Amino acid sequence: MTRSRVAKARDEANEPSSQVVRFGPDKPLKLAAGLTLSPFQTAYQTYGSLNDDRSNAILICHALTGDQHVANTHPVTGKPGWWEALVGPGRVIDTDRFFVICANVIGSCLGSTGPASLNPETGEPYGLNLPVITIKDMVRAQAMLVDHLGIERLFSVIGGSMGGMQVLEWAASFPDRVLTAVPVATGARHTAQNIAFHEVGRQAVMADPDWHGGAYLKSGKHPGKGLAVARMAAHITYLSEPALHRKFGRNLQDREQLTFGFDAEFQIESYLRHQGITFVDRFDANSYLYLTRAMDYFDLAAEHDGHLTRAFTGTKTRFCVVSFTSDWLFPTEESRMVVHALNAAGASVSFVEIETDRGHDAFLLDEPEFHAAVGGFLKSAARNAGISS
Amino acid sequence: MTRSRVAKARDEANEPSSQVVRFGPDKPLKLAAGLTLSPFQTAYQTYGSLNDDRSNAILICHALTGDQHVANTHPVTGKPGWWEALVGPGRVIDTDRFFVICANVIGSCLGSTGPASLNPETGEPYGLNLPVITIKDMVRAQAMLVDHLGIERLFSVIGGSMGGMQVLEWAASFPDRVLTAVPVATGARHTAQNIAFHEVGRQAVMADPDWHGGAYLKSGKHPGKGLAVARMAAHITYLSEPALHRKFGRNLQDREQLTFGFDAEFQIESYLRHQGITFVDRFDANSYLYLTRAMDYFDLAAEHDGHLTRAFTGTKTRFCVVSFTSDWLFPTEESRMVVHALNAAGASVSFVEIETDRGHDAFLLDEPEFHAAVGGFLKSAARNAGISS
Repeated sequence: MTRSRVAKARDEANEPSSQVVRFGPDKPLKLAAGLTLSPFQTAYQTYGSLNDDRSNAILICHALTGDQHVANTHPVTGKPGWWEALVGPGRVIDTDRFFVICANVIGSCLGSTGPASLNPETGEPYGLNLPVITIKDMVRAQAMLVDHLGIERLFSVIGGSMGGMQVLEWAASFPDRVLTAVPVATGARHTAQNIAFHEVGRQAVMADPDWHGGAYLKSGKHPGKGLAVARMAAHITYLSEPALHRKFGRNLQDREQLTFGFDAEFQIESYLRHQGITFVDRFDANSYLYLTRAMDYFDLAAEHDGHLTRAFTGTKTRFCVVSFTSDWLFPTEESRMVVHALNAAGASVSFVEIETDRGHDAFLLDEPEFHAAVGGFLKSAARNAGISS
Repeated sequence: MTRSRVAKARDEANEPSSQVVRFGPDKPLKLAAGLTLSPFQTAYQTYGSLNDDRSNAILICHALTGDQHVANTHPVTGKPGWWEALVGPGRVIDTDRFFVICANVIGSCLGSTGPASLNPETGEPYGLNLPVITIKDMVRAQAMLVDHLGIERLFSVIGGSMGGMQVLEWAASFPDRVLTAVPVATGARHTAQNIAFHEVGRQAVMADPDWHGGAYLKSGKHPGKGLAVARMAAHITYLSEPALHRKFGRNLQDREQLTFGFDAEFQIESYLRHQGITFVDRFDANSYLYLTRAMDYFDLAAEHDGHLTRAFTGTKTRFCVVSFTSDWLFPTEESRMVVHALNAAGASVSFVEIETDRGHDAFLLDEPEFHAAVGGFLKSAARNAGISS
C-alpha cells in the first residue's frame, strides 16, 4: 500500500493526472536566479466555468506542501482536496459562480517542473541541477498559465502561507491583472526564525545518507527518514501551543502508565510521527528543499529597493488581508506590515484578524469567521465587478 | 583538533577531571522506572568553602546540555563555566561566602553515570540498556552526594530550565533539606509543545544510521549529523523571534547578493549550523535522548495525585521564582502556575518576571535585573539564616 503510494507520487511528478500546459523552447521561464527554465510544464486543476467576458477567474495559490488538488480527491492520498472547506459549489469560493484555477507551483512534485522532473538534457531527474526557484518565478509561471487560458485579468488571487506570498507577488508584479487579492496567514518576507526552522528541515533531509547529494532518484532511494524529521519540526510551527495543549496535553498513547522507554509514549509523539511518515509518501525531498528555499528568499520590500510600499504604488487591486491570532509562524504583526504598506500606497484594504487558538494551520480549517470574511469580501467585489451569481 | 575534542569528551564520560563520588552495591539509586542503578557515580565541582556549621551550601542544578563546570574552564571546550556571569568570588552567587556544589546529572555524559558509561555487567557502554532516568532520579542522586559531603540542609538550590525542574523536585522531595529555592525559566511540567520539540530531536538522532540502535560507541561511531539537527531545532526554541530578528534579521552571510543555492546563505543559517557542529563535539547522543526524555516525563502535579499544591504542602522553604517575558519554551504562565500552587500551599514566594527579548537563554546571559533579583533574595535569606558575609 505504502509502496504503491510512493510509486503513484513518482508518476504524478512527471505524468500528472491533472491538466498540463507545456511551454517549449520558444517560451522559457525567466528565473530570478538569472537563468531560464526551458522547456517546463505546469500541472493545474480548474473548477467551474469561465464566463463569456472571462471576468470570473479566481487563482488559488497553494502552500509549501500543498498542490493543485484544492477541491478534488487527491490522486496519491485519496483524501479530499486541501481547501474543500472553502472551495466548491455553493461554498465561499463558489465554483458555480467562479472559474477556479489552482496550479502546482514550479519546484513542487505534483506535475509541474521540479527537481523530480526529468531533465531533458540528461534524461535523468534534475535533482539539485534544477536552478533555485523563487516566489516570483512561481508567479511568472502562473501568469503564463493564465495567458494560456486566455484570461487577461483575474477576478481574485487567493492563498495562505506560501500561497499568500504568491498573492502579494502577483499584486506587485501584475497589478493590472489582479482585481482583488486575498493574502492569508502570510507576510511580505520570511523572518529569521522562519528561515531557521526551514534550515533545520533542510539539514535533516541532507543528513540522511539516502539523500545522495540530491541524486537519490537515480539510485531508487528516498531520504524518507530525514524528510520525516523535517516535516515533524515544521508541523510544530503550524500549530499553536494552546491547540497542542487542548488536543494532546500530556495524554499518554494507548496506555495509562508511563513505560519508561523511547517509544511514542505521549499522544503528541505518535501524532508527530504519523505526520512525518504520511508526508514522506506523497512528497519529494528535493522539492521540500526548493520550496523552503523559495520562501526563505521571499522579501518583497527587498525587491523594491527596501520599501514595501513601492511594491504597491498606484495599485488598483482591492485587498483583503487575513491573519490569525495564534499564528506564531506568520504572526499578525507580519500582516500588519503589509497593511501599513498598502495604506501608504493608497490601496483599498480590508484587514481581518481572526480570533482562534489553532495557529497557522487555521487557514486550512473550518474557521467560520475567516470564511465569512472572505465570502463577504468576494461577494461585494463580485457585485462591483458585475459578475452575476 | 575536533577529533581530539571528541576523544576528550569520551574520556570525561568515564574518567572525569571533576571530583567523583562512587556508590557501590550497598547504596543503589532507586529509579522512578522501578529499577535500581548500581553501582553508579556522580561527578561534581565545588567552589568556595563549607562553613563550620555547614549552613552555607548552595546546590546549582544544570540544564539539559549543561554540566558541573559552572564556574571553571570547561575541560572539553576550553570555554568559561556556563554560569560565570552569576557564580564566582564577589558575584551574585558569591563563592567567597557560599560553598557552591554543581553535579553532573545522572544520564548525562560528563562523568556521572549515563548511557556512555561502561555497564559493569558487560564491560561495554550502557547505550539504551541504561534505565530511563527522571528528574526525581537526578535529584535523589544529588541528595546522596549532599549526604556524602556531610551537608544536612542546603542554604539554596538554584537552577534554570531542566535545572529549575530539579529545584522544584528538590523542594517537593526534600522540603526539610532546602532552606531556599530559586527555580528559573522553568515549569512544573513539560508541555505538549515542549515534548514535541524534544521528540523531533530524538527522531533526528535515531534517524542517523550511525546511531546503530544506541550501540554506536561499540562500533566507534557517533550519530553526529542527527544530533546536530536535534541541537539546531532545540536552539531555535532557546531564542526569541525578536532576538533572532535583532541579531540576524535577513542578513546574508559574507556576501552582498543572493547566490541562489543551498549553502548557508543567511547568517542565521551559519549560526545554527555552527551550534549543531560544536555541540556534537562535546555531547553524547544517547545522553541527549535520556535527558530530553527526563524533561518530557516531568510532571510534578502528577507525582502528587494531580495537585501541584500538594507537592509543597507545609513547606518552609522560601522560593524565588524567575521567568523571562520573551521565553516561549517556558513562558511566564508556567512559572505563574508554580507560584499559584506555592501561594495555595502557604509558602513564602517572591515572583520576578524579567523584561527581556532574549528568550529562554536569558537565564544564561548577562541580565542585570535577573542577577539583582537573585542577589537580593539570597542576601536577605543569608541574613535571616545568620550566614556571615
